Amino acid sequence: MRRPPPSDGASADGPLAIVCGGGSLPLAVADAVRRRGRDVLLFPVRGFAGPEVERFPCHWVALGQLGRIFRRARAAGCRDVVFIGALVRPSLAQLRFDWMTIRALPRLVRAFRGGDDHLLAGVARVFEDEGFRLVGAHEVAPDLLLPEGVLGRRHPAERDRGDIAHALALLAATGPFDVGQAAVVADRHVLAIEAAEGTDRMLERITALRQEGRIRAGAGIGVLVKAPKPGQDRRFDLPSIGPPTVTGVARAGLAGLAAVAGATVVAEPEEVARRAEAEGVFVVGLPARGAGA
Amino acid sequence: MRRPPPSDGASADGPLAIVCGGGSLPLAVADAVRRRGRDVLLFPVRGFAGPEVERFPCHWVALGQLGRIFRRARAAGCRDVVFIGALVRPSLAQLRFDWMTIRALPRLVRAFRGGDDHLLAGVARVFEDEGFRLVGAHEVAPDLLLPEGVLGRRHPAERDRGDIAHALALLAATGPFDVGQAAVVADRHVLAIEAAEGTDRMLERITALRQEGRIRAGAGIGVLVKAPKPGQDRRFDLPSIGPPTVTGVARAGLAGLAAVAGATVVAEPEEVARRAEAEGVFVVGLPARGAGA
Repeated sequence: MRRPPPSDGASADGPLAIVCGGGSLPLAVADAVRRRGRDVLLFPVRGFAGPEVERFPCHWVALGQLGRIFRRARAAGCRDVVFIGALVRPSLAQLRFDWMTIRALPRLVRAFRGGDDHLLAGVARVFEDEGFRLVGAHEVAPDLLLPEGVLGRRHPAERDRGDIAHALALLAATGPFDVGQAAVVADRHVLAIEAAEGTDRMLERITALRQEGRIRAGAGIGVLVKAPKPGQDRRFDLPSIGPPTVTGVARAGLAGLAAVAGATVVAEPEEVARRAEAEGVFVVGLPARGAGA
Repeated sequence: MRRPPPSDGASADGPLAIVCGGGSLPLAVADAVRRRGRDVLLFPVRGFAGPEVERFPCHWVALGQLGRIFRRARAAGCRDVVFIGALVRPSLAQLRFDWMTIRALPRLVRAFRGGDDHLLAGVARVFEDEGFRLVGAHEVAPDLLLPEGVLGRRHPAERDRGDIAHALALLAATGPFDVGQAAVVADRHVLAIEAAEGTDRMLERITALRQEGRIRAGAGIGVLVKAPKPGQDRRFDLPSIGPPTVTGVARAGLAGLAAVAGATVVAEPEEVARRAEAEGVFVVGLPARGAGA
């Protein structure tokens, strides 16, 4: 699945184009790519990415400006493109179509009627038709992938492993429906399943329900589990965690979080480990198959 | 599945004992049973049921006072017991064990480790061991069951029927995990799946996400679908809807709500129909098999 990273990045394929939404992940990816000696060119999407992207060379774009991305990326000698960061489902009002996008529209509109996977797959095809190569963050920044085992020193207890297995089975069942691949399970009871709201929001819900006494499991019981969708194209939809996820897990009174090793991007691994220690929760990378049981 | 309702209710099995949590459903059931000529005796659970239950004969109980329910119900000549109304997952602090409950505790504790179904199944067995018959609200108040077809005049459009089918397939997949059986789907995209938060809370989330522009589908697109868990014991876990559900659906900007006919209790059918009309949303009872497609 994974291509070897270019050994002499800058010259092999030119700078890496990074089309980026919100959150700290795009910056972490850009830094990791640079550390490997390759230049980057960011295309932050207006309304999603924050001003901190400007410490990298970048061209701001609106959603729908594919032609602009293609022209600028070509002019800079980019051949590989990464999509990364939160692009919460945009409303039509945020779209600014350019000609290129309008030509691609019939394909994109068909994709719009499906879930995330299909929309992004449609966009990916348009990039590829234009001669770009869509690569995954895990390919260009493999040091950001969650390794197997714990980050920090805490380990999941036997009860937690039971909850992890239960959540993985649930996520395997919801996978075909192209829905956010995260769930919270406490003592084998499903407390929350993520859909459009995203992981942080789901954790806030657990925090609120717990404060209202609506969660039976005591504090320190329960696990957040994230898993890639079965068959999902990892080039644009890898689950990700970061320091805020750890804080959210701790606030929700859970024991820890588990995600699939090699298939989850960690925005700031050292800070995640440090915060897990400080908050007293575990963070564990599960082996890709048969995890947790 | 459904037993014929007793034709001369009061004399056949004595008054109906109704162990009731919160919401308007217990009152609706009690009224419906009375309309059929049978007396009722309510056991409202402290901290969950509201004071309005007191227009019926009732004995307040704390969670865990099974012995008290058994004694009072026997003294009143009750043989049939219905569990109804919201009992959001209690915390241990709300439990007040009596001797009867303590004797039943080993079975209940085992049930506590599973999901809702198992806990209620454990409680049901204890009632049955004591010579009571656990009946479902649908058996004693069949006029509260959602009929096939629309309540009010609005019908689901073709797009809505696609969303309904998608949600039913999703709920069939999550069913084995004993999780709240409701979901919101808009244009075949899953916006929310209910777990511990309950339907009203899930709808509030959609409202908030829409206000923040985080939902792509326009206003008036999307359906709330509720379905019974596959294989669930309908005597104590029938999905229910009521006027607040209709209001929640309208606020969330959805087209309507669909639930399975004959397997969903409607707290106030006339008010649900009236409010659906007023809010411009549909409420539809789906045939039990192959609904919506």
